[in-house]
Amino acid sequence: MNKNSSNTMALAPNTSNKRETVCIFGTGDFGRALGHKMIQCGYPVVYGSRSTQISNLIPKDAEVLGHAEAAQKAAIIIIAIQRQHYNFLTPLAEVLRGKVLVDISNNLKLNQYPESNAEYLAQLLPGSKVVKAFNTVSAWALQSGTLDASRQVFVCGDDVEAKQMVMNIVRALGLTPLDKGSLLAAQEIENYPLQLFPMWKFPIFLSLGLTAFFFLYCLALDIIYTYIYENNNFSFFIAITIPNRVCPVMALILLALVYLPGIFAAIIQLYRGTKYRRFPDWLDKWMLCRKQLGLVALAFASLHVVFTLVTPMRAFVSWRTGKGIISQALNNKTEPLNHTNAWISDSYLALGILGYFLFVLLGITSLPSVSNNVNWREFRFVQSKLGYLALILCTAHTLVYGGKWFLSPSAYKWYLPNIYILSLIVPCAVLVVKFVLIFPCVDKPLTKIRQGWERNPKYSE
Amino acid sequence: MNKNSSNTMALAPNTSNKRETVCIFGTGDFGRALGHKMIQCGYPVVYGSRSTQISNLIPKDAEVLGHAEAAQKAAIIIIAIQRQHYNFLTPLAEVLRGKVLVDISNNLKLNQYPESNAEYLAQLLPGSKVVKAFNTVSAWALQSGTLDASRQVFVCGDDVEAKQMVMNIVRALGLTPLDKGSLLAAQEIENYPLQLFPMWKFPIFLSLGLTAFFFLYCLALDIIYTYIYENNNFSFFIAITIPNRVCPVMALILLALVYLPGIFAAIIQLYRGTKYRRFPDWLDKWMLCRKQLGLVALAFASLHVVFTLVTPMRAFVSWRTGKGIISQALNNKTEPLNHTNAWISDSYLALGILGYFLFVLLGITSLPSVSNNVNWREFRFVQSKLGYLALILCTAHTLVYGGKWFLSPSAYKWYLPNIYILSLIVPCAVLVVKFVLIFPCVDKPLTKIRQGWERNPKYSE
Amino acid sequence: MNKNSSNTMALAPNTSNKRETVCIFGTGDFGRALGHKMIQCGYPVVYGSRSTQISNLIPKDAEVLGHAEAAQKAAIIIIAIQRQHYNFLTPLAEVLRGKVLVDISNNLKLNQYPESNAEYLAQLLPGSKVVKAFNTVSAWALQSGTLDASRQVFVCGDDVEAKQMVMNIVRALGLTPLDKGSLLAAQEIENYPLQLFPMWKFPIFLSLGLTAFFFLYCLALDIIYTYIYENNNFSFFIAITIPNRVCPVMALILLALVYLPGIFAAIIQLYRGTKYRRFPDWLDKWMLCRKQLGLVALAFASLHVVFTLVTPMRAFVSWRTGKGIISQALNNKTEPLNHTNAWISDSYLALGILGYFLFVLLGITSLPSVSNNVNWREFRFVQSKLGYLALILCTAHTLVYGGKWFLSPSAYKWYLPNIYILSLIVPCAVLVVKFVLIFPCVDKPLTKIRQGWERNPKYSE
Repeated sequence: MNKNSSNTMALAPNTSNKRETVCIFGTGDFGRALGHKMIQCGYPVVYGSRSTQISNLIPKDAEVLGHAEAAQKAAIIIIAIQRQHYNFLTPLAEVLRGKVLVDISNNLKLNQYPESNAEYLAQLLPGSKVVKAFNTVSAWALQSGTLDASRQVFVCGDDVEAKQMVMNIVRALGLTPLDKGSLLAAQEIENYPLQLFPMWKFPIFLSLGLTAFFFLYCLALDIIYTYIYENNNFSFFIAITIPNRVCPVMALILLALVYLPGIFAAIIQLYRGTKYRRFPDWLDKWMLCRKQLGLVALAFASLHVVFTLVTPMRAFVSWRTGKGIISQALNNKTEPLNHTNAWISDSYLALGILGYFLFVLLGITSLPSVSNNVNWREFRFVQSKLGYLALILCTAHTLVYGGKWFLSPSAYKWYLPNIYILSLIVPCAVLVVKFVLIFPCVDKPLTKIRQGWERNPKYSE
Repeated sequence: MNKNSSNTMALAPNTSNKRETVCIFGTGDFGRALGHKMIQCGYPVVYGSRSTQISNLIPKDAEVLGHAEAAQKAAIIIIAIQRQHYNFLTPLAEVLRGKVLVDISNNLKLNQYPESNAEYLAQLLPGSKVVKAFNTVSAWALQSGTLDASRQVFVCGDDVEAKQMVMNIVRALGLTPLDKGSLLAAQEIENYPLQLFPMWKFPIFLSLGLTAFFFLYCLALDIIYTYIYENNNFSFFIAITIPNRVCPVMALILLALVYLPGIFAAIIQLYRGTKYRRFPDWLDKWMLCRKQLGLVALAFASLHVVFTLVTPMRAFVSWRTGKGIISQALNNKTEPLNHTNAWISDSYLALGILGYFLFVLLGITSLPSVSNNVNWREFRFVQSKLGYLALILCTAHTLVYGGKWFLSPSAYKWYLPNIYILSLIVPCAVLVVKFVLIFPCVDKPLTKIRQGWERNPKYSE
Repeated sequence: MNKNSSNTMALAPNTSNKRETVCIFGTGDFGRALGHKMIQCGYPVVYGSRSTQISNLIPKDAEVLGHAEAAQKAAIIIIAIQRQHYNFLTPLAEVLRGKVLVDISNNLKLNQYPESNAEYLAQLLPGSKVVKAFNTVSAWALQSGTLDASRQVFVCGDDVEAKQMVMNIVRALGLTPLDKGSLLAAQEIENYPLQLFPMWKFPIFLSLGLTAFFFLYCLALDIIYTYIYENNNFSFFIAITIPNRVCPVMALILLALVYLPGIFAAIIQLYRGTKYRRFPDWLDKWMLCRKQLGLVALAFASLHVVFTLVTPMRAFVSWRTGKGIISQALNNKTEPLNHTNAWISDSYLALGILGYFLFVLLGITSLPSVSNNVNWREFRFVQSKLGYLALILCTAHTLVYGGKWFLSPSAYKWYLPNIYILSLIVPCAVLVVKFVLIFPCVDKPLTKIRQGWERNPKYSE
């Protein structure tokens, strides 16, 4: 069901009220927000609280009772109190026997306690059926109805029926329950809302660092050098010219870094003669963030494309073009078409377009909903075959475009190589080694190793 | 499983026929289409009908019996008749006791009846297990096998086992069942197929209205004014020049309108000193369609980008560029590079590119499959931090580009301000107020309020 | 839960070890990989093997026993052996009675055996509960932890509880189980990993063939003809000019081919007077790959857009522009603005932009996660209404752009029509017939037929 319909539902409480009563322990912010929402969706709500005098903050249709009385009124009790106060529940063990307890708590840090809060609760009250749920939803989102982000609610628990009851409530609130299995998954579920793009950190910091380096490199060679030795002030190059030099370099290097760990893995496996030993830790981590590296590379490539396409609109470029034409006109001559130039210019443009096209295809197939509709064989085909083809095309694009600078001595300002030369080192290395790896004499043993064969059993653990 | 495989399955009926018999009451279009499909998938089908003479239209492998006899042959009975004829089922109550009745009906209007058809059926036959399903699938799609649209079938019902049986049939037909909980969800499920982008209506009508207004505004100032006072016929501006003036204005205003309701909400909460009172209705609705507003803004921004990029290909622009160069050549002089112009042109291009880049990122994270893989903290980071950054960049882009027109009197044709001035009002207001709101002296009480604190309990309901 | 968290889990085995023991029959590659992963996730694993001497390859925390002893230790037995050796399990039938057997096997060819491996296993051991699972996961992916592709594990089986147990293991390994219903789905699940984009084959081969034809056609007319009769060497046209002529032609023809089968279907239904007879096989297949045809068309259209936008950056184009301006300057005159040209150039650009914009919208709605959030009515609105509008705009774009070549005799080199004329045949035919079909006198009977009415019952089977 899409968002609107369930929101409408939330705004217009269902009148046919045959939902079962739900008890909420704790009248804190999240407990109140959840109670509000449940009342809107037709659930009778009873709060269990130390002070039973009716507070203004509690939804007015809810009853407030002492913990024991409240618990007796419902089969499902939502524990909206903090973990450090869970032990006050132990005296209630008899009342809570057989009841479904929903742990909705979150921690402040990843893996704050040795066991998850839900497992701790289950240990305290072994007679109750503990279900973990709702911890990934924010009180603010529940209340304002603006659940733009994920509507998924992770649910886990050891009792199947209790889990089903909680999942029905989740669905009734317009959210999507996702069964994560037994209570062992609670740790993972409790860690989930604390993350901030953990897999993106390395790719983003790496690319920020490299971007800063290449930006300063270009700044020195293109603006400062020109200013000092040629007395030209091209400071406005900072806005477009230099970004458009850094972006393609970053895109190419990052794309090569996506395929480099696979090459390392193949070499390590060939050397060890087995696939049954773990890779070094850094390689493991690198392989796990290849998708993110690739997407950052795609972002740089996209910026490069747009920066390139606006070129004719730049005042500097119009001025330079006009100057060239005027000088020909004033000299009364028309230069003939330089066929070599026409070939080079059209070639690198075409190579770049095709490479970028494949790159975008790779990006689209990495969308979760697309990759879920693709089997392993298809995924490998796209990510490996098309990915290498994209790398080849982009490397060729850079070679054809930057080639003229490789040999010209004027490209070595301050004896530093041109940025295009730097950008080609990693991709060329990857392509050369990959080319070696697909030779049958290397590929055959590698395939055998990956199918489980061992050259040298003494290596195995 | 992807679409093809299940379609193949549909085309090549499974020979190992061990499916349970399904009974269908009613031989209307949908009943026949569903029967056809079920027979293809290996289910024995028996129709319950008033006239038991074999009709040509009924799938030839199906049996046709009277209602009572047909019902006795199967544990699952699909009720493919209209709600107004449901009462003819009451005499069959005894035969249908304990059977699973699948309500597949749809209404003609949203909330046509006080209770959903499935709940009505359950009231009529309290001894049967009613499951709502299949109402979101079209007969035409079932029959032609071209299920390009959603393969999701919403299922709800109070009996878990009955629901499981129906969900197994749904899966066998190559569709994806989605458990929506108890029968209370039936109303929502019955309303679903009647909707036509309900959340998009306001954003689309708003943007159509604004677009029309700005289009006429530009038409008056750029074509009619020029024609009357300067005697120039620039009617061809209608095709590209004016759309490319309206699109960026619309994109900027709509993007600002995405963030405006959040500002209003903050001000209201600060003023009331509590978060426990509902926002006014218009604000609630506005907040619920922010995502749609943002996507419409992204569409306008994308059109603006493409309209801008084709500029050098326009005959008018080539002619104007040529004219400028020729007049310089004829005057025998080359104008030097105007550094200020170069800076301004490169700056607004770079600002626009970066703003659009962030805008596209926001659009990608609002894809359902991406936002489902993102937790609440990450979603807030992208939509709030990156969203405001995009708004700042786009506003700066417009300021730098349009700045020259603000003070020049020639920009006030007919005493009307230039369109760029109009477009900046809302975004600048949003940014200024937001800037005030992040001051600690304002931000602190607001955060406290959003965590559940109340300044003035007398306000609470 | 997103990828990272579950990967973290895989790297840091859960210490609180209360998972049930799992038995694995077979110590081949996949059996070992699965065992490794299960041990990492906290499952005690016992291998059943012919030779019980401990092999180096088996994970060191696993026990290795004879088949019968191993089976007795666990409720779930994973059958990691090949189908042709299944019959060695029959002597163990008594030990395996009541156990959950997980069939993880794959075949080498589609539909290799008359019944699926899982069904064969269930026939051999009727006392056991057979569940099909894990066959879509690769051993390499399990081991390296780089599950970039689909994390979905299709599960099917006749026993609900057994299925639940297996699905819990799947979840614990960080994968997503997808219930596909009863064991009848096993054939489909076993075929799934063998596919390589089956629905894409026809669209891709068709477009490759057409592309080759049009490429050679342009090569002949634009390069060879020019070289022979005008003695101009434009060989560099191969890189950009000709691709940019072929791409739009392909995009337009393929887009028309998306709508052509619907037209055929309507005509066939009108002629037959019923919707209850199957379409010819070619039409059925064509209709099933319309989405893929449309996406290939979108790819060609996108390439056309980028090829067009780089035009001003081409050396040849700068040279041609410069030459035109210089010749005007040398003749001391400035040509006035040609208003007709300005109109035509702006019109086809605007039409193309709007057509492409709608085309991209269609592409976005065909993303699985978007189309799942859209009901049938909304999907039809987008794909049918907006789709035809896109076709109309793109056809108009081509007509306005290519129009000048239709009548000019110089366009008929070697008496062959210009490529733009060829490209317009199919789209114009589709639009004309569609225009006829929406006339009320044709549309009314068609709608009636699609609602189940029959003109001529003798036609029905």
